[in-house]
Amino acid sequence: MPNIHDQSDRKVIFFHAPQSRSGGTLALLEELDADYELHLLNLKQGEQRQSSYLAINPMGKVPAILHRDALVTEQPAVFLYMADLYPEARLAPSIGDPLRGPYVRWLVYYGSSFEPAIVDRSQKRAPVPPMTSPYGGWDDVMNTIHAQLAKGPYLLGERFTAADVLWGGALHWTTLFNLVPDTPDIRAYIERVITRPAMQRAAARDEAFVAQQAA
Amino acid sequence: MPNIHDQSDRKVIFFHAPQSRSGGTLALLEELDADYELHLLNLKQGEQRQSSYLAINPMGKVPAILHRDALVTEQPAVFLYMADLYPEARLAPSIGDPLRGPYVRWLVYYGSSFEPAIVDRSQKRAPVPPMTSPYGGWDDVMNTIHAQLAKGPYLLGERFTAADVLWGGALHWTTLFNLVPDTPDIRAYIERVITRPAMQRAAARDEAFVAQQAA
Repeated sequence: MPNIHDQSDRKVIFFHAPQSRSGGTLALLEELDADYELHLLNLKQGEQRQSSYLAINPMGKVPAILHRDALVTEQPAVFLYMADLYPEARLAPSIGDPLRGPYVRWLVYYGSSFEPAIVDRSQKRAPVPPMTSPYGGWDDVMNTIHAQLAKGPYLLGERFTAADVLWGGALHWTTLFNLVPDTPDIRAYIERVITRPAMQRAAARDEAFVAQQAA
Repeated sequence: MPNIHDQSDRKVIFFHAPQSRSGGTLALLEELDADYELHLLNLKQGEQRQSSYLAINPMGKVPAILHRDALVTEQPAVFLYMADLYPEARLAPSIGDPLRGPYVRWLVYYGSSFEPAIVDRSQKRAPVPPMTSPYGGWDDVMNTIHAQLAKGPYLLGERFTAADVLWGGALHWTTLFNLVPDTPDIRAYIERVITRPAMQRAAARDEAFVAQQAA
């Protein structure tokens, strides 16, 4: 088995588009102080649909990570994988830790319930019938998030994890777009997360990428 | 840290509804030979929306797992969590294994891309614009699955994993409902998975649960 503490062996290639959902992964890599080589895609020029990129990720989406030639896509999967790759950053409760289950739950919930709910909301589409819908109804999603955030400063209570990097960033842009209500609890949580030095560093890098692509 | 090899400490409570998506988790628990206490919910009687169940899972969905009072929901999260809890079943490539990334990717992809695509398909809703859609377009999803299945007998090649329990079962019901085309490659893969003794045992148990609830 490869030594996952060997820094050189942990280097990944990160496919990123500025001001897109992959901003969450950029923030995570900064939080992990991970070793990564950045490949920028220009979404406005459709680079994510060009054959050279489809050969890497046939879904034509970002984020995507290549680690030792293995492809990891889907934001919650990238988070699970990268946070486990850097255990010394302590952003992932390890297997056997009582927080491991809730941690995996909240990362996956982002992709399988929150994102579909946000897509319907942003497109003003009614949810499909509750028995078919992956997320029930909009209120189910909001109530579940509110109930969880009421429990502690972070999603899993006292401990800051990679799930907060994902959720803090996601609630930040969804409140900006008026998709999620900007309640005091949600606002306090967002501020707690996005004011972290690594999050600020990631945001500044992303702005520089936007300028670079516009030049 | 608790000893995860201590069988008594690994017992979970599994909330299941017959002939629902949680059938995948039932199959996984049989494949893992896991120790679980079953709680059946009757969806037709709306038991998933009753306050006693909403106190456990505020989303009112199955599957849900309670392990040492920690809640795990979302099918891909339940799979990741349970397969890691039973390493001796060898259904989860461990952290550091080159297959770990693709394994996490395919479990998460099920919830964040395949399910939303299937929901739109079953409801005859057009996908939202590709930049917004979590899954791009229907063809992206089908092409990605076909390309992956062409690589080996199982999703990750030669090695059977928990991802096959999820995908074999999901492709089984989605082809039955004519949502996914019943191509030779997909059919061969489904048969390879659902004929396994544990999968057959899970299917038989589920049929008995249906009869029990109808009585």
